[in-house]
Amino acid sequence: MNRQGILIVVSGFSGAGKGTIMKELTNRHAQYALSVSATTRQPRPEEEEGVAYFFKTVPEFERMIEQEELIEYACYVSNYYGTPRRYVEERLAEGRDVILEIEIQGARKIKERFPDSVLLFVTTKDAKTLEERLTGRGTEEPQVIRQRLARAAQEAEGIEEYDYLVINDDLDDCVAQVHRIIESEHLRMSRRLELVNHIREDLQGLTKGE
Amino acid sequence: MNRQGILIVVSGFSGAGKGTIMKELTNRHAQYALSVSATTRQPRPEEEEGVAYFFKTVPEFERMIEQEELIEYACYVSNYYGTPRRYVEERLAEGRDVILEIEIQGARKIKERFPDSVLLFVTTKDAKTLEERLTGRGTEEPQVIRQRLARAAQEAEGIEEYDYLVINDDLDDCVAQVHRIIESEHLRMSRRLELVNHIREDLQGLTKGE
Repeated sequence: MNRQGILIVVSGFSGAGKGTIMKELTNRHAQYALSVSATTRQPRPEEEEGVAYFFKTVPEFERMIEQEELIEYACYVSNYYGTPRRYVEERLAEGRDVILEIEIQGARKIKERFPDSVLLFVTTKDAKTLEERLTGRGTEEPQVIRQRLARAAQEAEGIEEYDYLVINDDLDDCVAQVHRIIESEHLRMSRRLELVNHIREDLQGLTKGE
Repeated sequence: MNRQGILIVVSGFSGAGKGTIMKELTNRHAQYALSVSATTRQPRPEEEEGVAYFFKTVPEFERMIEQEELIEYACYVSNYYGTPRRYVEERLAEGRDVILEIEIQGARKIKERFPDSVLLFVTTKDAKTLEERLTGRGTEEPQVIRQRLARAAQEAEGIEEYDYLVINDDLDDCVAQVHRIIESEHLRMSRRLELVNHIREDLQGLTKGE
């Protein structure tokens, strides 16, 4: 009985450390595959094609939209960002759990199209800690920090739409929690109906003394 | 931020070993409390009051029904069985996770009255293994075994109504799985809204530079 992969969406406050969590999770467990987004923004000098992003021209990206090659996409600061369908579907079919690190608009679209997907929101343990992390080395202007906090307040609006809330206080704990959530999601009845039907049919057979 | 306990319903095929799992779970983790049922059946010689059951007369039991002192009850083989409300509610309020080992009719009532409860169904890995366990030491009449399998086939009817399916193949694994499920359920957004609102309010405050 092969298990089908789970599509996992991870969002969270900037500064809550979701990138680090996802990296640790994929390092520790081969079952996870991080989806690579396509974007029309310019690559930075150190960025390799296909690692952080697949870099596309605007016409290339718009062709991908038309041909439904993206499972979600959005536009931020005049650049397109989107999730290529093929990579995600191939990994899921292999039984791997695919992680998308996207923002709430994308998360909503994914939940609509893939109701079995699991949405996680990563936060610091409280707002004060988030402020400290955003303040960083203390070199930022108070106004910049305030803008970042305002952004976090905006991000906080849609939290209830997520399935789980994960607190990144201790990195190890947090990675273990995310892994536990996904392992438990694999045990959900809705994901095991094939097995249930199998047992049910066999029981019917045995009852009839076949 | 104290966490509220979770009401956990465990059902499963007779022979799947749910009693052993629950015993191990409560031995290993102090957070779990096993609910003790009330019944009108006669105590067996070795049965102590308040351990396996609270023993009641029929009028006592019916008075408990009238006074809504039971969160669910049912009648099997002319005896009442029910779950006393007070013990469950007190443990939940203390933050402990309370386990009810009941059958599907009871499970349904619990889910209706406590939509946040978590319903687990325990099975062997397949029907053949269940048959072997029911056959036991091989001293049973084939007809008795067939009756037990017929009962299991009946129990299998409502499996989809449960939230999780747990396979008891290796006891240690199974106990760990159940514990993981409950720990993950504590991280569900619906159980953490108080924390979310707290963070949200604080973020608003920080944004305004309070």
